[in-house]
Amino acid sequence: MKPDNFDMAVIKFDDRGLVPAIVQNVKDGAVLMMAWMNEESINLTFETGYTWFWSRSRQELWNKGATSGNLQKVVDMLYDCDGDTILIKVEVNGVACHTGAYSCFHNPMWK
Amino acid sequence: MKPDNFDMAVIKFDDRGLVPAIVQNVKDGAVLMMAWMNEESINLTFETGYTWFWSRSRQELWNKGATSGNLQKVVDMLYDCDGDTILIKVEVNGVACHTGAYSCFHNPMWK
Repeated sequence: MKPDNFDMAVIKFDDRGLVPAIVQNVKDGAVLMMAWMNEESINLTFETGYTWFWSRSRQELWNKGATSGNLQKVVDMLYDCDGDTILIKVEVNGVACHTGAYSCFHNPMWK
Repeated sequence: MKPDNFDMAVIKFDDRGLVPAIVQNVKDGAVLMMAWMNEESINLTFETGYTWFWSRSRQELWNKGATSGNLQKVVDMLYDCDGDTILIKVEVNGVACHTGAYSCFHNPMWK
């Protein structure tokens, strides 16, 4: 939940009111996905203990896993040195990607 | 380096021509930083084997670590399911953050 001394003003939202949030599996360290949060989704994450994002395509608040069942339970949350990116460490039971892949990052671009 | 069959068209750059790139230490799984890449910085990363980004504050190409010495050697690079975020796995010798911290993500916002 929200730390007592946390001030939302430390987060630098972009001109759309959004900040990128990286989701990492706390157990194996895998980076699962990147999504966008607005202030309301951060507050919903604080209140519920599960990840909430802002869907840019659907233009709505999005409780990750509410449909698929693959909810992400928040274990830790950190913001970076310049306050414009968030890292969320989660416990998960299923996959992260809507394609059925374990992580959204599954397309190679290196050899 | 660039895979033979990689087509830059799979990457969805935003209206500024940028895509967020998450940098992860391949050895311990730590998420070190998030920075922005344009097409030229991706090509420089392919060509040199070290991370290049686009600095939004300085409006210039940025070879991470060129000044500090903390270069990031690319081991793997993946793009996500919708092509709008990149994950770069790197080998590093020093810290990632300009503050001297190991990771840019060192400010807690969870309890």
